[in-house]
Amino acid sequence: MELWYSEKHTNNVKFSLKVKEHIFSSQSKFQKVDIFDTYEYGKLLTLDGLVMVTERDEFVYHDMIVHTAMAVNSEIKNVLVIGGGDGGTVRELVRYPFVKQVDMVEIDKMVVDVSREYLPTISCELDNERVNVLYEDGIKFVKDKNNFYDLILIDSTDPIGPGEGLFTIDFYTNCYNALTDKGILINQNETPIYDEFFKVGINSNRKLKKMFPIVEVYGANIPTYPGGYWLFNFASKKYNPIDDFNEDKWNSLNIKTRYYNTNLHKGSFALPNFVKEKLEDGNV
Amino acid sequence: MELWYSEKHTNNVKFSLKVKEHIFSSQSKFQKVDIFDTYEYGKLLTLDGLVMVTERDEFVYHDMIVHTAMAVNSEIKNVLVIGGGDGGTVRELVRYPFVKQVDMVEIDKMVVDVSREYLPTISCELDNERVNVLYEDGIKFVKDKNNFYDLILIDSTDPIGPGEGLFTIDFYTNCYNALTDKGILINQNETPIYDEFFKVGINSNRKLKKMFPIVEVYGANIPTYPGGYWLFNFASKKYNPIDDFNEDKWNSLNIKTRYYNTNLHKGSFALPNFVKEKLEDGNV
Repeated sequence: MELWYSEKHTNNVKFSLKVKEHIFSSQSKFQKVDIFDTYEYGKLLTLDGLVMVTERDEFVYHDMIVHTAMAVNSEIKNVLVIGGGDGGTVRELVRYPFVKQVDMVEIDKMVVDVSREYLPTISCELDNERVNVLYEDGIKFVKDKNNFYDLILIDSTDPIGPGEGLFTIDFYTNCYNALTDKGILINQNETPIYDEFFKVGINSNRKLKKMFPIVEVYGANIPTYPGGYWLFNFASKKYNPIDDFNEDKWNSLNIKTRYYNTNLHKGSFALPNFVKEKLEDGNV
Repeated sequence: MELWYSEKHTNNVKFSLKVKEHIFSSQSKFQKVDIFDTYEYGKLLTLDGLVMVTERDEFVYHDMIVHTAMAVNSEIKNVLVIGGGDGGTVRELVRYPFVKQVDMVEIDKMVVDVSREYLPTISCELDNERVNVLYEDGIKFVKDKNNFYDLILIDSTDPIGPGEGLFTIDFYTNCYNALTDKGILINQNETPIYDEFFKVGINSNRKLKKMFPIVEVYGANIPTYPGGYWLFNFASKKYNPIDDFNEDKWNSLNIKTRYYNTNLHKGSFALPNFVKEKLEDGNV
Protein backbone atom coordinates (compact mmCIF):
# COMPACT_ATOMS: atom_id res chain seq x y z
CA MET A 1 0.00 0.00 0.00
CA GLU A 2 1.17 3.53 -0.74
CA LEU A 3 -0.13 6.61 1.04
CA TRP A 4 0.33 9.98 -0.70
CA TYR A 5 -0.46 13.50 0.51
CA SER A 6 -1.45 15.76 -2.41
CA GLU A 7 -1.94 19.51 -2.58
CA LYS A 8 -3.55 21.12 -5.59
CA HIS A 9 -1.50 24.24 -6.28
CA THR A 10 -4.12 25.14 -8.85
CA ASN A 11 -6.98 23.04 -10.21
CA ASN A 12 -4.52 21.76 -12.79
CA VAL A 13 -1.26 21.31 -10.85
CA LYS A 14 -0.74 18.81 -8.06
CA PHE A 15 2.20 18.29 -5.70
CA SER A 16 2.37 14.99 -3.83
CA LEU A 17 4.52 13.59 -1.05
CA LYS A 18 4.70 9.93 -0.12
CA VAL A 19 3.63 9.42 3.47
CA LYS A 20 4.94 6.98 6.06
CA GLU A 21 2.21 7.75 8.54
CA HIS A 22 -0.66 10.15 9.07
CA ILE A 23 0.25 11.04 12.65
CA PHE A 24 -2.32 13.61 13.73
CA SER A 25 -5.62 14.96 12.42
CA SER A 26 -8.06 17.21 14.17
CA GLN A 27 -10.42 20.08 13.52
CA SER A 28 -9.58 23.05 15.74
CA LYS A 29 -11.95 25.94 16.34
CA PHE A 30 -10.34 27.63 13.30
CA GLN A 31 -9.05 25.07 10.83
CA LYS A 32 -8.17 21.47 10.11
CA VAL A 33 -4.75 20.58 11.55
CA ASP A 34 -2.79 17.57 10.30
CA ILE A 35 0.68 16.13 10.79
CA PHE A 36 2.11 13.65 8.31
CA ASP A 37 5.43 11.85 8.43
CA THR A 38 6.73 11.98 4.85
CA TYR A 39 9.64 10.09 3.30
CA GLU A 40 11.25 13.04 1.55
CA TYR A 41 10.54 16.06 3.76
CA GLY A 42 10.20 14.55 7.25
CA LYS A 43 7.27 15.74 9.34
CA LEU A 44 4.77 17.94 7.52
CA LEU A 45 2.24 20.30 9.14
CA THR A 46 -0.79 21.16 7.03
CA LEU A 47 -3.60 23.60 7.84
CA ASP A 48 -6.86 23.06 5.95
CA GLY A 49 -4.94 20.59 3.79
CA LEU A 50 -2.22 23.04 2.66
CA VAL A 51 1.53 22.70 3.37
CA MET A 52 2.65 25.08 6.13
CA VAL A 53 6.03 23.66 7.12
CA THR A 54 8.09 20.56 6.60
CA GLU A 55 11.07 19.64 8.75
CA ARG A 56 13.37 19.53 5.75
CA ASP A 57 12.74 22.85 4.01
CA GLU A 58 11.35 25.10 6.80
CA PHE A 59 14.77 26.72 7.19
CA VAL A 60 14.32 28.63 3.93
CA TYR A 61 11.11 30.39 4.97
CA HIS A 62 12.23 31.07 8.53
CA ASP A 63 15.67 32.36 7.50
CA MET A 64 14.16 34.72 5.00
CA ILE A 65 11.28 36.10 7.08
CA VAL A 66 13.60 36.82 10.03
CA HIS A 67 17.20 37.52 9.02
CA THR A 68 16.40 39.87 6.14
CA ALA A 69 14.90 42.39 8.57
CA MET A 70 17.34 41.75 11.40
CA ALA A 71 20.29 42.44 9.10
CA VAL A 72 18.89 45.86 8.14
CA ASN A 73 18.36 47.14 11.68
CA SER A 74 20.62 45.80 14.39
CA GLU A 75 18.78 47.72 17.11
CA ILE A 76 15.57 45.69 16.99
CA LYS A 77 14.46 45.04 20.57
CA ASN A 78 10.73 44.35 20.52
CA VAL A 79 9.24 42.02 17.94
CA LEU A 80 5.65 41.02 17.24
CA VAL A 81 4.99 37.79 15.36
CA ILE A 82 1.43 37.36 14.08
CA GLY A 83 0.72 33.69 13.51
CA GLY A 84 3.87 31.59 13.30
CA GLY A 85 2.47 28.93 15.62
CA ASP A 86 5.01 26.31 14.58
CA GLY A 87 7.68 28.38 16.32
CA GLY A 88 10.24 28.57 13.52
CA THR A 89 10.15 32.35 13.28
CA VAL A 90 10.57 32.72 17.03
CA ARG A 91 13.47 30.24 17.00
CA GLU A 92 15.41 32.43 14.55
CA LEU A 93 14.55 35.68 16.36
CA VAL A 94 15.93 34.63 19.75
CA ARG A 95 19.33 33.98 18.17
CA TYR A 96 19.87 37.75 18.33
CA PRO A 97 21.13 38.74 21.78
CA PHE A 98 19.83 42.30 21.34
CA VAL A 99 16.22 41.12 20.91
CA LYS A 100 14.57 41.73 24.28
CA GLN A 101 10.98 40.65 23.76
CA VAL A 102 9.12 38.54 21.21
CA ASP A 103 5.32 38.54 21.39
CA MET A 104 3.94 35.70 19.31
CA VAL A 105 0.22 36.06 18.77
CA GLU A 106 -1.20 32.83 17.39
CA ILE A 107 -4.96 32.50 17.18
CA ASP A 108 -4.96 28.69 17.16
CA LYS A 109 -3.50 26.99 20.22
CA MET A 110 -3.76 23.62 18.50
CA VAL A 111 -1.08 24.65 15.99
CA VAL A 112 1.32 25.44 18.83
CA ASP A 113 0.42 22.26 20.70
CA VAL A 114 1.01 19.92 17.75
CA SER A 115 4.22 21.76 16.82
CA ARG A 116 5.52 21.32 20.37
CA GLU A 117 4.70 17.64 20.20
CA TYR A 118 5.65 16.66 16.65
CA LEU A 119 8.02 19.39 15.39
CA PRO A 120 10.51 19.86 18.24
CA THR A 121 13.33 21.14 15.99
CA ILE A 122 11.03 23.97 14.89
CA SER A 123 9.17 24.77 18.13
CA CYS A 124 12.25 24.46 20.36
CA GLU A 125 12.43 28.10 21.47
CA LEU A 126 8.76 28.70 22.30
CA ASP A 127 9.64 28.48 26.00
CA ASN A 128 12.52 30.93 25.73
CA GLU A 129 12.24 33.51 28.52
CA ARG A 130 12.15 36.37 26.03
CA VAL A 131 9.15 34.88 24.21
CA ASN A 132 5.49 35.48 25.13
CA VAL A 133 3.11 33.09 23.40
CA LEU A 134 -0.35 34.65 23.29
CA TYR A 135 -3.37 32.75 21.99
CA GLU A 136 -5.26 35.71 20.65
CA ASP A 137 -6.56 37.17 17.42
CA GLY A 138 -3.65 39.16 15.98
CA ILE A 139 -6.07 41.60 14.35
CA LYS A 140 -7.50 42.59 17.72
CA PHE A 141 -4.15 42.39 19.52
CA VAL A 142 -2.46 44.98 17.36
CA LYS A 143 -5.34 47.51 17.53
CA ASP A 144 -4.37 49.32 20.71
CA LYS A 145 -0.58 49.06 20.37
CA ASN A 146 1.27 52.25 19.67
CA ASN A 147 4.91 53.02 18.82
CA PHE A 148 6.22 49.91 20.55
CA TYR A 149 7.44 47.23 18.14
CA ASP A 150 10.61 47.60 16.07
CA LEU A 151 9.59 44.69 13.86
CA ILE A 152 6.32 42.99 12.98
CA LEU A 153 6.45 39.64 11.16
CA ILE A 154 3.17 38.46 9.68
CA ASP A 155 3.75 34.73 9.46
CA SER A 156 0.24 33.82 8.37
CA THR A 157 -1.76 31.47 6.22
CA ASP A 158 -3.33 32.74 3.03
CA PRO A 159 -6.44 34.93 3.30
CA ILE A 160 -8.84 32.01 3.59
CA GLY A 161 -10.07 31.06 7.05
CA PRO A 162 -8.33 32.68 10.05
CA GLY A 163 -5.76 34.50 7.90
CA GLU A 164 -8.36 36.58 6.05
CA GLY A 165 -8.25 39.75 8.18
CA LEU A 166 -4.45 39.86 7.98
CA PHE A 167 -4.57 41.22 4.42
CA THR A 168 -6.74 44.33 5.05
CA ILE A 169 -5.83 48.00 5.06
CA ASP A 170 -7.26 48.35 8.59
CA PHE A 171 -4.92 45.69 9.90
CA TYR A 172 -1.90 47.20 8.14
CA THR A 173 -2.81 50.63 9.56
CA ASN A 174 -2.86 49.21 13.06
CA CYS A 175 0.49 47.51 12.42
CA TYR A 176 1.92 50.80 11.18
CA ASN A 177 0.82 52.52 14.38
CA ALA A 178 2.17 49.71 16.54
CA LEU A 179 5.61 50.18 15.00
CA THR A 180 8.27 52.62 16.18
CA ASP A 181 9.53 55.30 13.79
CA LYS A 182 12.23 52.90 12.59
CA GLY A 183 9.76 50.03 12.32
CA ILE A 184 9.85 47.26 9.74
CA LEU A 185 6.98 44.96 8.75
CA ILE A 186 7.50 41.73 6.81
CA ASN A 187 4.70 39.57 5.48
CA GLN A 188 4.62 36.52 3.31
CA ASN A 189 3.49 37.69 -0.10
CA GLU A 190 2.52 34.53 -2.01
CA THR A 191 3.95 32.95 -5.16
CA PRO A 192 4.05 34.93 -8.41
CA ILE A 193 3.81 31.69 -10.42
CA TYR A 194 0.05 31.16 -10.08
CA ASP A 195 -2.36 34.06 -10.51
CA GLU A 196 -4.79 33.05 -7.77
CA PHE A 197 -1.96 33.45 -5.27
CA PHE A 198 -0.28 36.45 -6.79
CA LYS A 199 -3.54 38.46 -6.89
CA VAL A 200 -3.40 38.32 -3.09
CA GLY A 201 0.30 39.23 -3.08
CA ILE A 202 -0.15 42.21 -5.39
CA ASN A 203 -3.06 43.49 -3.31
CA SER A 204 -1.07 43.19 -0.11
CA ASN A 205 1.89 44.99 -1.70
CA ARG A 206 -0.34 47.84 -2.95
CA LYS A 207 -1.98 48.33 0.43
CA LEU A 208 1.38 48.48 2.21
CA LYS A 209 2.66 51.02 -0.34
CA LYS A 210 -0.18 53.38 0.61
CA MET A 211 1.25 53.60 4.12
CA PHE A 212 4.93 52.79 4.21
CA PRO A 213 7.47 54.99 2.39
CA ILE A 214 9.62 51.94 1.61
CA VAL A 215 8.10 48.69 0.33
CA GLU A 216 10.33 46.22 -1.49
CA VAL A 217 9.65 42.63 -2.49
CA TYR A 218 12.07 39.75 -2.15
CA GLY A 219 11.89 36.06 -2.94
CA ALA A 220 13.12 32.63 -1.91
CA ASN A 221 13.05 29.07 -3.22
CA ILE A 222 10.76 26.94 -1.10
CA PRO A 223 10.37 23.59 -2.84
CA THR A 224 7.20 22.49 -1.03
CA TYR A 225 5.32 25.75 -1.69
CA PRO A 226 3.37 26.36 -4.91
CA GLY A 227 5.71 27.20 -7.80
CA GLY A 228 8.72 26.48 -5.57
CA TYR A 229 9.14 30.25 -5.27
CA TRP A 230 7.72 32.49 -2.60
CA LEU A 231 7.73 36.27 -2.09
CA PHE A 232 7.84 38.53 0.95
CA ASN A 233 7.08 42.23 1.40
CA PHE A 234 9.65 44.32 3.23
CA ALA A 235 7.70 47.42 4.40
CA SER A 236 9.59 50.00 6.36
CA LYS A 237 9.28 53.50 7.83
CA LYS A 238 12.94 54.40 7.63
CA TYR A 239 15.37 51.71 6.51
CA ASN A 240 15.84 50.61 2.93
CA PRO A 241 16.65 46.87 2.74
CA ILE A 242 19.56 47.43 0.34
CA ASP A 243 20.88 50.95 0.99
CA ASP A 244 20.76 50.60 4.77
CA PHE A 245 21.97 47.03 4.82
CA ASN A 246 25.15 46.61 6.85
CA GLU A 247 26.54 43.25 5.80
CA ASP A 248 29.70 43.45 7.89
CA LYS A 249 27.63 44.08 10.97
CA TRP A 250 25.42 41.05 10.34
CA ASN A 251 28.38 38.84 9.48
CA SER A 252 30.10 39.87 12.72
CA LEU A 253 27.21 38.33 14.67
CA ASN A 254 28.34 34.88 13.46
CA ILE A 255 24.85 33.50 13.10
CA LYS A 256 25.10 30.25 11.18
CA THR A 257 22.31 29.83 8.66
CA ARG A 258 21.54 27.22 6.03
CA TYR A 259 19.83 29.50 3.51
CA TYR A 260 20.39 33.19 4.30
CA ASN A 261 23.65 35.01 3.70
CA THR A 262 24.45 38.62 3.01
CA ASN A 263 25.01 38.15 -0.73
CA LEU A 264 21.75 36.28 -0.98
CA HIS A 265 20.08 39.13 0.94
CA LYS A 266 20.91 41.51 -1.89
CA GLY A 267 20.19 38.93 -4.57
CA SER A 268 16.76 38.10 -3.18
CA PHE A 269 15.52 41.64 -3.95
CA ALA A 270 16.50 41.25 -7.64
CA LEU A 271 13.21 40.02 -9.08
CA PRO A 272 12.53 38.52 -12.51
CA ASN A 273 10.95 40.90 -15.02
CA PHE A 274 7.58 39.15 -15.08
CA VAL A 275 7.29 39.58 -11.31
CA LYS A 276 8.33 43.24 -11.37
CA GLU A 277 5.91 43.97 -14.21
CA LYS A 278 2.98 42.29 -12.51
CA LEU A 279 3.72 44.16 -9.28
CA GLU A 280 3.90 47.48 -11.14
CA ASP A 281 0.84 46.92 -13.31
CA GLY A 282 -1.20 45.52 -10.46
CA ASN A 283 -2.59 42.93 -12.85
CA VAL A 284 -2.02 39.21 -13.06
CA MET B 1 -12.56 11.65 -17.02
CA GLU B 2 -9.37 13.35 -15.89
CA LEU B 3 -5.98 12.80 -17.50
CA TRP B 4 -2.89 13.70 -15.46
CA TYR B 5 0.78 13.66 -16.41
CA SER B 6 2.98 12.85 -13.40
CA GLU B 7 6.73 13.05 -12.94
CA LYS B 8 8.40 11.52 -9.93
CA HIS B 9 11.03 14.04 -8.83
CA THR B 10 12.22 11.41 -6.39
CA ASN B 11 10.62 8.11 -5.43
CA ASN B 12 8.73 10.08 -2.79
CA VAL B 13 7.81 13.36 -4.52
CA LYS B 14 5.45 13.64 -7.47
CA PHE B 15 4.55 16.62 -9.65
CA SER B 16 1.42 16.35 -11.76
CA LEU B 17 -0.16 18.42 -14.51
CA LYS B 18 -3.74 18.03 -15.73
CA VAL B 19 -3.77 17.19 -19.41
CA LYS B 20 -6.24 18.24 -22.10
CA GLU B 21 -4.80 15.91 -24.69
CA HIS B 22 -1.87 13.58 -25.23
CA ILE B 23 -0.94 14.94 -28.65
CA PHE B 24 2.14 12.98 -29.68
CA SER B 25 3.99 9.89 -28.51
CA SER B 26 6.80 8.05 -30.23
CA GLN B 27 10.00 6.21 -29.52
CA SER B 28 12.91 7.76 -31.42
CA LYS B 29 16.22 6.03 -31.94
CA PHE B 30 17.37 7.64 -28.68
CA GLN B 31 14.47 8.22 -26.34
CA LYS B 32 10.70 8.38 -25.85
CA VAL B 33 9.30 11.68 -27.12
CA ASP B 34 5.88 12.96 -25.98
CA ILE B 35 3.87 16.13 -26.35
CA PHE B 36 0.99 16.87 -23.99
CA ASP B 37 -1.39 19.80 -24.02
CA THR B 38 -1.74 20.80 -20.35
CA TYR B 39 -4.26 23.17 -18.77
CA GLU B 40 -1.79 25.14 -16.67
CA TYR B 41 1.45 25.16 -18.67
CA GLY B 42 0.29 24.86 -22.28
CA LYS B 43 2.14 22.38 -24.47
CA LEU B 44 4.64 20.18 -22.66
CA LEU B 45 7.53 18.27 -24.24
CA THR B 46 8.81 15.28 -22.29
CA LEU B 47 11.78 13.03 -23.08
CA ASP B 48 11.74 9.60 -21.47
CA GLY B 49 8.81 10.84 -19.41
CA LEU B 50 10.62 13.85 -17.90
CA VAL B 51 9.64 17.52 -18.36
CA MET B 52 11.94 19.27 -20.83
CA VAL B 53 9.98 22.42 -21.68
CA THR B 54 6.52 23.84 -21.29
CA GLU B 55 5.21 26.77 -23.29
CA ARG B 56 4.45 28.75 -20.15
CA ASP B 57 7.70 28.60 -18.19
CA GLU B 58 10.35 27.87 -20.89
CA PHE B 59 11.34 31.56 -20.88
CA VAL B 60 13.07 31.18 -17.52
CA TYR B 61 15.46 28.46 -18.62
CA HIS B 62 16.17 29.97 -22.04
CA ASP B 63 16.70 33.48 -20.67
CA MET B 64 19.13 32.22 -18.08
CA ILE B 65 21.16 29.84 -20.24
CA VAL B 66 21.65 32.49 -22.96
CA HIS B 67 21.58 36.06 -21.63
CA THR B 68 23.84 35.45 -18.64
CA ALA B 69 26.76 34.66 -20.93
CA MET B 70 25.88 37.18 -23.63
CA ALA B 71 25.83 39.99 -21.07
CA VAL B 72 29.37 39.16 -19.93
CA ASN B 73 30.98 39.16 -23.37
CA SER B 74 29.44 41.38 -26.04
CA GLU B 75 31.84 40.15 -28.70
CA ILE B 76 30.46 36.63 -28.98
CA LYS B 77 30.28 35.73 -32.68
CA ASN B 78 30.29 31.94 -32.96
CA VAL B 79 28.12 29.84 -30.70
CA LEU B 80 27.75 26.09 -30.33
CA VAL B 81 24.58 24.69 -28.78
CA ILE B 82 24.75 21.02 -27.79
CA GLY B 83 21.23 19.61 -27.58
CA GLY B 84 18.57 22.28 -27.31
CA GLY B 85 16.39 20.63 -29.96
CA ASP B 86 13.26 22.55 -28.95
CA GLY B 87 14.93 25.69 -30.34
CA GLY B 88 14.43 28.00 -27.34
CA THR B 89 18.13 28.56 -26.80
CA VAL B 90 18.68 29.36 -30.48
CA ARG B 91 15.70 31.75 -30.44
CA GLU B 92 17.32 33.84 -27.68
CA LEU B 93 20.79 33.74 -29.28
CA VAL B 94 19.74 35.20 -32.63
CA ARG B 95 18.35 38.27 -30.87
CA TYR B 96 21.95 39.51 -30.68
CA PRO B 97 22.93 41.21 -33.94
CA PHE B 98 26.63 40.56 -33.30
CA VAL B 99 26.13 36.76 -33.23
CA LYS B 100 27.27 35.54 -36.66
CA GLN B 101 26.84 31.77 -36.49
CA VAL B 102 24.95 29.37 -34.25
CA ASP B 103 25.67 25.66 -34.70
CA MET B 104 23.00 23.61 -32.97
CA VAL B 105 24.03 19.98 -32.66
CA GLU B 106 21.04 17.89 -31.65
CA ILE B 107 21.40 14.13 -31.73
CA ASP B 108 17.67 13.44 -32.04
CA LYS B 109 15.92 14.82 -35.12
CA MET B 110 12.55 13.80 -33.71
CA VAL B 111 12.90 16.39 -30.93
CA VAL B 112 13.41 19.12 -33.52
CA ASP B 113 10.58 17.84 -35.71
CA VAL B 114 7.98 17.73 -32.92
CA SER B 115 9.12 21.12 -31.65
CA ARG B 116 8.69 22.62 -35.10
CA GLU B 117 5.22 21.15 -35.32
CA TYR B 118 3.86 21.59 -31.79
CA LEU B 119 5.99 24.29 -30.14
CA PRO B 120 6.18 27.07 -32.75
CA THR B 121 6.74 29.87 -30.21
CA ILE B 122 9.88 28.04 -29.04
CA SER B 123 11.23 26.64 -32.33
CA CYS B 124 10.50 29.79 -34.36
CA GLU B 125 14.13 30.72 -35.15
CA LEU B 126 15.45 27.32 -36.18
CA ASP B 127 15.31 28.45 -39.82
CA ASN B 128 17.16 31.68 -39.13
CA GLU B 129 19.93 32.12 -41.70
CA ARG B 130 22.59 32.36 -39.00
CA VAL B 131 21.56 28.98 -37.53
CA ASN B 132 22.90 25.58 -38.65
CA VAL B 133 20.88 22.67 -37.31
CA LEU B 134 23.06 19.54 -37.32
CA TYR B 135 21.69 16.13 -36.41
CA GLU B 136 24.84 14.71 -34.94
CA ASP B 137 26.28 13.43 -31.71
CA GLY B 138 27.59 16.53 -29.89
CA ILE B 139 30.32 14.46 -28.26
CA LYS B 140 31.80 13.54 -31.63
CA PHE B 141 31.09 16.92 -33.21
CA VAL B 142 33.16 18.86 -30.71
CA LYS B 143 36.21 16.52 -30.86
CA ASP B 144 38.02 18.09 -33.79
CA LYS B 145 37.02 21.72 -33.21
CA ASN B 146 39.75 24.05 -32.12
CA ASN B 147 39.75 27.68 -30.96
CA PHE B 148 36.58 28.56 -32.85
CA TYR B 149 33.56 29.05 -30.58
CA ASP B 150 33.18 32.04 -28.27
CA LEU B 151 30.38 30.33 -26.39
CA ILE B 152 29.25 26.73 -25.89
CA LEU B 153 25.83 26.10 -24.35
CA ILE B 154 25.18 22.54 -23.21
CA ASP B 155 21.39 22.41 -23.25
CA SER B 156 21.10 18.72 -22.49
CA THR B 157 19.02 16.16 -20.70
CA ASP B 158 20.35 14.58 -17.53
CA PRO B 159 23.09 11.94 -17.84
CA ILE B 160 20.71 9.10 -18.55
CA GLY B 161 20.27 8.00 -22.17
CA PRO B 162 21.75 10.23 -24.88
CA GLY B 163 22.89 12.91 -22.41
CA GLU B 164 25.29 10.59 -20.59
CA GLY B 165 28.51 11.46 -22.43
CA LEU B 166 27.90 15.19 -21.94
CA PHE B 167 29.00 15.02 -18.31
CA THR B 168 32.48 13.51 -18.81
CA ILE B 169 35.92 15.07 -18.45
CA ASP B 170 36.78 14.04 -22.04
CA PHE B 171 33.82 15.94 -23.40
CA TYR B 172 34.62 19.03 -21.30
CA THR B 173 38.24 18.89 -22.48
CA ASN B 174 37.10 18.88 -26.09
CA CYS B 175 34.76 21.79 -25.38
CA TYR B 176 37.63 23.69 -23.75
CA ASN B 177 39.74 23.20 -26.87
CA ALA B 178 36.89 24.19 -29.15
CA LEU B 179 36.58 27.53 -27.32
CA THR B 180 38.55 30.68 -28.11
CA ASP B 181 40.77 32.19 -25.43
CA LYS B 182 37.85 34.29 -24.23
CA GLY B 183 35.48 31.35 -24.39
CA ILE B 184 32.56 30.69 -22.05
CA LEU B 185 30.78 27.38 -21.46
CA ILE B 186 27.38 27.14 -19.77
CA ASN B 187 25.70 23.89 -18.83
CA GLN B 188 22.57 23.07 -16.92
CA ASN B 189 23.67 21.90 -13.51
CA GLU B 190 20.65 20.21 -11.95
CA THR B 191 18.62 21.05 -8.86
CA PRO B 192 20.31 21.25 -5.45
CA ILE B 193 17.05 20.24 -3.75
CA TYR B 194 17.25 16.50 -4.37
CA ASP B 195 20.52 14.62 -3.88
CA GLU B 196 20.18 12.30 -6.87
CA PHE B 197 20.22 15.34 -9.12
CA PHE B 198 22.75 17.40 -7.22
CA LYS B 199 25.31 14.58 -7.20
CA VAL B 200 25.41 15.01 -10.97
CA GLY B 201 25.60 18.79 -10.66
CA ILE B 202 28.43 18.70 -8.14
CA ASN B 203 30.39 16.27 -10.31
CA SER B 204 29.96 18.42 -13.37
CA ASN B 205 31.04 21.51 -11.43
CA ARG B 206 34.17 19.75 -10.11
CA LYS B 207 35.19 18.53 -13.54
CA LEU B 208 34.82 21.99 -15.06
CA LYS B 209 36.89 23.48 -12.23
CA LYS B 210 39.80 21.22 -13.18
CA MET B 211 39.99 22.95 -16.54
CA PHE B 212 38.53 26.43 -16.44
CA PRO B 213 40.08 29.14 -14.25
CA ILE B 214 36.63 30.62 -13.59
CA VAL B 215 33.64 28.44 -12.70
CA GLU B 216 30.68 30.03 -10.94
CA VAL B 217 27.22 28.63 -10.29
CA TYR B 218 23.95 30.51 -10.70
CA GLY B 219 20.32 29.58 -10.24
CA ALA B 220 16.81 30.26 -11.46
CA ASN B 221 13.24 29.43 -10.46
CA ILE B 222 11.74 26.97 -12.91
CA PRO B 223 8.40 25.83 -11.48
CA THR B 224 8.04 22.67 -13.60
CA TYR B 225 11.55 21.38 -12.80
CA PRO B 226 12.30 19.30 -9.67
CA GLY B 227 12.49 21.50 -6.59
CA GLY B 228 11.35 24.51 -8.64
CA TYR B 229 14.98 25.64 -8.60
CA TRP B 230 17.65 24.88 -11.18
CA LEU B 231 21.37 25.60 -11.36
CA PHE B 232 23.77 26.40 -14.19
CA ASN B 233 27.58 26.35 -14.39
CA PHE B 234 29.27 29.41 -15.85
CA ALA B 235 32.75 28.17 -16.87
CA SER B 236 35.06 30.66 -18.48
CA LYS B 237 38.65 31.12 -19.67
CA LYS B 238 38.83 34.85 -19.13
CA TYR B 239 35.66 36.64 -18.08
CA ASN B 240 34.24 36.60 -14.56
CA PRO B 241 30.42 36.70 -14.64
CA ILE B 242 30.24 39.44 -11.99
CA ASP B 243 33.50 41.42 -12.24
CA ASP B 244 33.44 41.57 -16.05
CA PHE B 245 29.72 42.11 -16.30
CA ASN B 246 28.85 45.31 -18.14
CA GLU B 247 25.22 45.97 -17.30
CA ASP B 248 24.98 49.29 -19.12
CA LYS B 249 26.19 47.63 -22.28
CA TRP B 250 23.60 44.87 -22.07
CA ASN B 251 20.82 47.29 -21.18
CA SER B 252 21.75 49.43 -24.19
CA LEU B 253 20.88 46.49 -26.46
CA ASN B 254 17.21 46.86 -25.47
CA ILE B 255 16.50 43.16 -25.49
CA LYS B 256 13.12 42.65 -23.84
CA THR B 257 13.07 39.64 -21.55
CA ARG B 258 10.48 38.16 -19.22
CA TYR B 259 12.86 36.71 -16.64
CA TYR B 260 16.42 37.99 -17.06
CA ASN B 261 17.54 41.48 -16.11
CA THR B 262 20.89 42.85 -15.05
CA ASN B 263 20.06 43.01 -11.34
CA LEU B 264 18.83 39.45 -11.47
CA HIS B 265 22.07 38.48 -13.25
CA LYS B 266 24.05 39.51 -10.19
CA GLY B 267 21.47 38.10 -7.80
CA SER B 268 21.39 34.71 -9.49
CA PHE B 269 25.04 34.07 -8.51
CA ALA B 270 24.23 34.65 -4.82
CA LEU B 271 23.54 31.09 -3.71
CA PRO B 272 21.95 29.86 -0.48
CA ASN B 273 24.41 28.54 2.11
CA PHE B 274 23.31 24.91 1.80
CA VAL B 275 24.05 25.02 -1.95
CA LYS B 276 27.44 26.70 -1.50
CA GLU B 277 28.42 24.23 1.20
CA LYS B 278 27.45 21.18 -0.84
CA LEU B 279 29.37 22.53 -3.84
CA GLU B 280 32.45 23.17 -1.69
CA ASP B 281 32.31 19.88 0.19
CA GLY B 282 31.54 17.87 -2.90
CA ASN B 283 29.11 15.82 -0.86
CA VAL B 284 25.37 15.70 -0.90
